[in-house]
Amino acid sequence: MVIALDAMGGEQAPDMVVNGASIALLRFPQAEFLFYGVESRIRPLLDKLPKLAEHAVIHHTDEFVTDDAKPSVALRGARRSSMRLAIDAVAAGEADCVVSAGNTGALMAMAKFVLKMIPGIDRPAIASFMPTLRSESVMLDLGANIGCDSENLVQFALLGDVFARTVLGVTQPVVGLLNVGSEDMKGNDAVRGAALRLRGPGAPVRFHGFIEGDDIAQGTVDVVVTDGFTGNIALKTIEGTAKLYSSFLRAAFRNSLMARLGYLFANRALGKLRNRMDPRRYNGAVFLGIQGICVKSHGSTDALGFANAIGVACDMEQNGFLDKLHEEIQQMSALPDAADKTAASGARP
Amino acid sequence: MVIALDAMGGEQAPDMVVNGASIALLRFPQAEFLFYGVESRIRPLLDKLPKLAEHAVIHHTDEFVTDDAKPSVALRGARRSSMRLAIDAVAAGEADCVVSAGNTGALMAMAKFVLKMIPGIDRPAIASFMPTLRSESVMLDLGANIGCDSENLVQFALLGDVFARTVLGVTQPVVGLLNVGSEDMKGNDAVRGAALRLRGPGAPVRFHGFIEGDDIAQGTVDVVVTDGFTGNIALKTIEGTAKLYSSFLRAAFRNSLMARLGYLFANRALGKLRNRMDPRRYNGAVFLGIQGICVKSHGSTDALGFANAIGVACDMEQNGFLDKLHEEIQQMSALPDAADKTAASGARP
Repeated sequence: MVIALDAMGGEQAPDMVVNGASIALLRFPQAEFLFYGVESRIRPLLDKLPKLAEHAVIHHTDEFVTDDAKPSVALRGARRSSMRLAIDAVAAGEADCVVSAGNTGALMAMAKFVLKMIPGIDRPAIASFMPTLRSESVMLDLGANIGCDSENLVQFALLGDVFARTVLGVTQPVVGLLNVGSEDMKGNDAVRGAALRLRGPGAPVRFHGFIEGDDIAQGTVDVVVTDGFTGNIALKTIEGTAKLYSSFLRAAFRNSLMARLGYLFANRALGKLRNRMDPRRYNGAVFLGIQGICVKSHGSTDALGFANAIGVACDMEQNGFLDKLHEEIQQMSALPDAADKTAASGARP
Repeated sequence: MVIALDAMGGEQAPDMVVNGASIALLRFPQAEFLFYGVESRIRPLLDKLPKLAEHAVIHHTDEFVTDDAKPSVALRGARRSSMRLAIDAVAAGEADCVVSAGNTGALMAMAKFVLKMIPGIDRPAIASFMPTLRSESVMLDLGANIGCDSENLVQFALLGDVFARTVLGVTQPVVGLLNVGSEDMKGNDAVRGAALRLRGPGAPVRFHGFIEGDDIAQGTVDVVVTDGFTGNIALKTIEGTAKLYSSFLRAAFRNSLMARLGYLFANRALGKLRNRMDPRRYNGAVFLGIQGICVKSHGSTDALGFANAIGVACDMEQNGFLDKLHEEIQQMSALPDAADKTAASGARP
């Protein structure tokens, strides 16, 4: 398994990228890493990690995509950037997947342009894991598409289903559509139309129906489907609320001597809580719908978080995500009604 | 101050309504309560609360709106229901405000029909308080309007601004528009159009710009403006995440003997945390834009939560919410550009 890494993306790059690869190697001892970036900065880091160095090749480039670069500008201009070269490696068959902690918009634009969309899928979606009361779930789209029609949402349902099966290991994932209520008449045209199709005969997934915001954390479904506007806001609302809660918790423990004492006793158990809510654990947003495996790490993560993003890419590759997705799309296309839609979408530029 | 109460709305009604009024009376000793509902069920509860009984009048009716009633059906059919009679009391000038824990859709439909919209406001919005790192903020719309255009969002900004000033006591509230990023080009047409108007000359509020989901809990702004689809999902996502966190926290404290001991020491301090995140504290969603004060309590709340909902209604009444809102709308109408819009919206059926 060969993983192309944008060594220059992310706040703590390239250190965090190299150290992240080193941690990922413990879980995937067969992995080979291609580092794209400034050799004089990557080499000294590899010199300190001889185990990793045996599994690493550096592809030097001075160029990289800045965080404030416009996607369209990066796409046209940054053809020798660390990000672009890492994606090119996947297109050329030199790598199985690519991971970057750089500019999200640029990464999406480049991945879409270089790797192309999967026939039958109109638009890519960003997906990520979420902690839930039951275990973990997948949510998409987290911001790639601001406006979505019902066909987009149905396709996201299929993408999320295959992702949950291959990476979360859920045999028959249950899919829910995020809405403002569970009744049929609730919501906008897009969610109502998508629900009709997902409830219909030959639906590609096991459909639970509409779910509400509190169902995300409850783990009511394995796959939460929504448009990129709502999904992005829901994701960041979860992050903000978790921070608020932990800030209130810290304040409570500082409140009195008794509380501080209590903290000392409970510290180890609270570590488990911290671990369960640790954003690094859920790091690694996946671009689904593209003909290739492309994972976006949080820009501000550390080596452990980056290693988790690499882990998501490796899981997708090892468990045959792309093959399973192709199979599913072919099965859907075999249905008389869906076949027209796939053909139509395939004809779009 | 006279408060009309739908004594039959909510899971624990009428007990929770009567006991809630009794708690609210401690904060508002001048309040008078009109209870609408089944007298034979309300009377025995009042008999146990002689202080409240002195401030209470029961208006008997056998009818009430069920939770699964369609708003349109309730509006046409339930004209003698406890909910409708309580709203009628405000329209007739017999009460200053109305509070109900019943069917949200029916309450909104009835309040809009009976009390009418404020001229210059096209659509009502549901607003509520949110806990933040700084203190509290207001968020709207929480579900009254699934689709919103930029004019709706601008009006919500004004409603939220006056609400924050009169009820939260913020002198110059800062208003933010919920979006998927802070840059000008982010988001859909509605938020971009609203931002243009709120940044323009003669804008009715102090506009911060776009905010993201994590800014809600951070307290970046005093008023969070969004459409009802996103707002409802964000609100319930906050509730769900808070529940997840507290469930993980409880599990951590049960994890070992040491942790249980720690809990004993920290228990009192943790009570403060529980209090800060207590949903009852933020109970009371307000229908803004209607010519009257109408507060919706959570259906599953208890007496303390219901008392808080009554408190929100009383604060709005005491601090002259409706008068201040009328003033603001007149000032806006005086602006040449806004005057056309107000006239146009006033002409709609």
